Amino acid sequence: MTKNRLEACSDGVFAIVITLLVLDIKLPEGNSAGLSHALLESLPRIAAYVMSFAIIGLYWISHHRSFEMIAKVDGAILWLNLLLLLLVSFIPFPTALLGRYPNEALPIVIYGLTLIACNAVGLGMMAYLLRRPHLMAHGHGRDSLRRQFPVHLIVMVNSGYLLAVLLARVAPLASYLLLALTLVALIARIVKFEPWEETGP
Amino acid sequence: MTKNRLEACSDGVFAIVITLLVLDIKLPEGNSAGLSHALLESLPRIAAYVMSFAIIGLYWISHHRSFEMIAKVDGAILWLNLLLLLLVSFIPFPTALLGRYPNEALPIVIYGLTLIACNAVGLGMMAYLLRRPHLMAHGHGRDSLRRQFPVHLIVMVNSGYLLAVLLARVAPLASYLLLALTLVALIARIVKFEPWEETGP
Amino acid sequence: MTKNRLEACSDGVFAIVITLLVLDIKLPEGNSAGLSHALLESLPRIAAYVMSFAIIGLYWISHHRSFEMIAKVDGAILWLNLLLLLLVSFIPFPTALLGRYPNEALPIVIYGLTLIACNAVGLGMMAYLLRRPHLMAHGHGRDSLRRQFPVHLIVMVNSGYLLAVLLARVAPLASYLLLALTLVALIARIVKFEPWEETGP
Amino acid sequence: MTKNRLEACSDGVFAIVITLLVLDIKLPEGNSAGLSHALLESLPRIAAYVMSFAIIGLYWISHHRSFEMIAKVDGAILWLNLLLLLLVSFIPFPTALLGRYPNEALPIVIYGLTLIACNAVGLGMMAYLLRRPHLMAHGHGRDSLRRQFPVHLIVMVNSGYLLAVLLARVAPLASYLLLALTLVALIARIVKFEPWEETGP
Repeated sequence: MTKNRLEACSDGVFAIVITLLVLDIKLPEGNSAGLSHALLESLPRIAAYVMSFAIIGLYWISHHRSFEMIAKVDGAILWLNLLLLLLVSFIPFPTALLGRYPNEALPIVIYGLTLIACNAVGLGMMAYLLRRPHLMAHGHGRDSLRRQFPVHLIVMVNSGYLLAVLLARVAPLASYLLLALTLVALIARIVKFEPWEETGP
Repeated sequence: MTKNRLEACSDGVFAIVITLLVLDIKLPEGNSAGLSHALLESLPRIAAYVMSFAIIGLYWISHHRSFEMIAKVDGAILWLNLLLLLLVSFIPFPTALLGRYPNEALPIVIYGLTLIACNAVGLGMMAYLLRRPHLMAHGHGRDSLRRQFPVHLIVMVNSGYLLAVLLARVAPLASYLLLALTLVALIARIVKFEPWEETGP
Repeated sequence: MTKNRLEACSDGVFAIVITLLVLDIKLPEGNSAGLSHALLESLPRIAAYVMSFAIIGLYWISHHRSFEMIAKVDGAILWLNLLLLLLVSFIPFPTALLGRYPNEALPIVIYGLTLIACNAVGLGMMAYLLRRPHLMAHGHGRDSLRRQFPVHLIVMVNSGYLLAVLLARVAPLASYLLLALTLVALIARIVKFEPWEETGP
Repeated sequence: MTKNRLEACSDGVFAIVITLLVLDIKLPEGNSAGLSHALLESLPRIAAYVMSFAIIGLYWISHHRSFEMIAKVDGAILWLNLLLLLLVSFIPFPTALLGRYPNEALPIVIYGLTLIACNAVGLGMMAYLLRRPHLMAHGHGRDSLRRQFPVHLIVMVNSGYLLAVLLARVAPLASYLLLALTLVALIARIVKFEPWEETGP
């Protein structure tokens, strides 16, 4: 029950964050003469919105996958989860920065660091679980956790984000390309998932 | 469990989008002398709000109906569903455009294209399921999917939206009429639904 | 399952509307010298926030109570429920009007009419159910519906709101008093509720 | 069922409030030249965001813990819970004040008083339950309630908040320190929680 409630609460936060993102795409109040121009100018915000939507969607699915393997929740998991939700619910801010200042380096840096921080908390949760197999669900152990989140994937994704952060000042376009590539790789991996049986109550 | 959680998450997004719409109906800060005038001016926004509320409500019910027929969720369904949620949670933006520039063609075009994109993803999900009967729930198959979303209805609705888009520049009033008629036809269809048994836990 | 999902979705909308209300209580950006003055000026908004919170809380509880009596949901119930959610999620707009123009008649009129419209849809749902006992849950019938929402209460509440609307232009203070009294009477009635057994999974 | 629904609704409000907090961290529209300066200026808002996120997270966990001990919900519990949600969903307003006027005394006072009011309602709920053991869940009684929320903890936390309020005008820095210390103490206590078994359907 408790684990399920924690999952439901986290789902709520994910759903709200993912939906709040659209609130940033706002047209400046003005005369309708320049409407098409204003819409063109809001394209970076729409692109930032789509990227963050996909990234939060990915975190959502990963969160789901990891909680499928957990049976018991202790105080540390509770707080690591809250810390993850804090970082995820922070994402709309760097997203808004990216959309508003697409040619600046600083927003890319803040955006990339936020994603790396999210991954770090996820890794912390994983490391914590690896040393506490008694918290894992029946049929799941260290191996299934490692299979779900393989080391090479974690290294690749975080290297992508880190490189994007480092390149932000010298080559912002390369940063965007790296962010997009990492995202596409993650999406491609998930599309290949096995179908899940409908189980439950 | 997994399917149920995906449904619950999607419900969360639908509920949030449908409720966020009202945030766009805002009065400009000003003196109270012109309050009744300002309220009159916000009528297009209220109309846009009601239309989008009804349309998202429709997507919600359709989403529900299609997930009743699904038993297993694979990676492709997961991403098609996320894409649908992306498009649905984008609706507040064209709604705000419509409410702010009711006499412009561009907002109608963007609004109509967003709805057509939603339907396209829904169709994609349906086409995917039609070729994978093993993902369907017990007692449901291709026929129940086709009965639930008949071809003539899909053609009619999308033609309505497309025509509204095409007429936006030459006859915006006809566009609004088409949008409203399509909506009323969809609502009328749903009101005739059979009562659902309360089943479940 | 379906009824439960409809309940869960409605709960989501109620929870979001009730929480969005606070977004309207915003301080104008300015120098900190006038902070205490600006806070005093935002008192009407806080009062409007508290009133709408209590009213939506009441609708939430009433919604809950009525869905306890329903076993099957048909298309009409579905749309009446969506109409109710539309009106409830509209409440932040008249609330913001009330908080911003507390001395004007028009906001009271719009606020009162919104509440009356909510009650009218609730009544419509009730009238629909009274003629369709086969939709009611086991152990519930017309009598339990009438006991839950007695005629004298419905008349009293709506008369209170209507009188508040009519008095808005000549005696706004009396309107506020009427709204507050109606609210207190409703809250007092609910506090006397019998404890509910925890049933279910 | 009813208790579960009340829990789910409260969870919804908690999840939304916790996620809405980020909406206040907004950059003023301006030229990108001063972006890093503007970001530095928004640091107090980010700090206020993190603090309120942690505090609402704590209320969430406490809420959860207390409802685990409740089996039946009566009208008084219902309204006390709604009052608690009202106060919790109000937190974004004093948080925004804190973030915008970090050097003023008034925001600290309002922030601290809001937290004390939340605790007071929680205490009221606890006092109500202590005199109505028949509402408690099987295996839970006055003792488990007292063990969960020990008197010395309640006194300590509220003294911390009260002292922060009283010191706001003379030593705002001490106020912030007190708020942070209280928070860290609460977090440290929760991290030591025993793991929860996964029970339920």
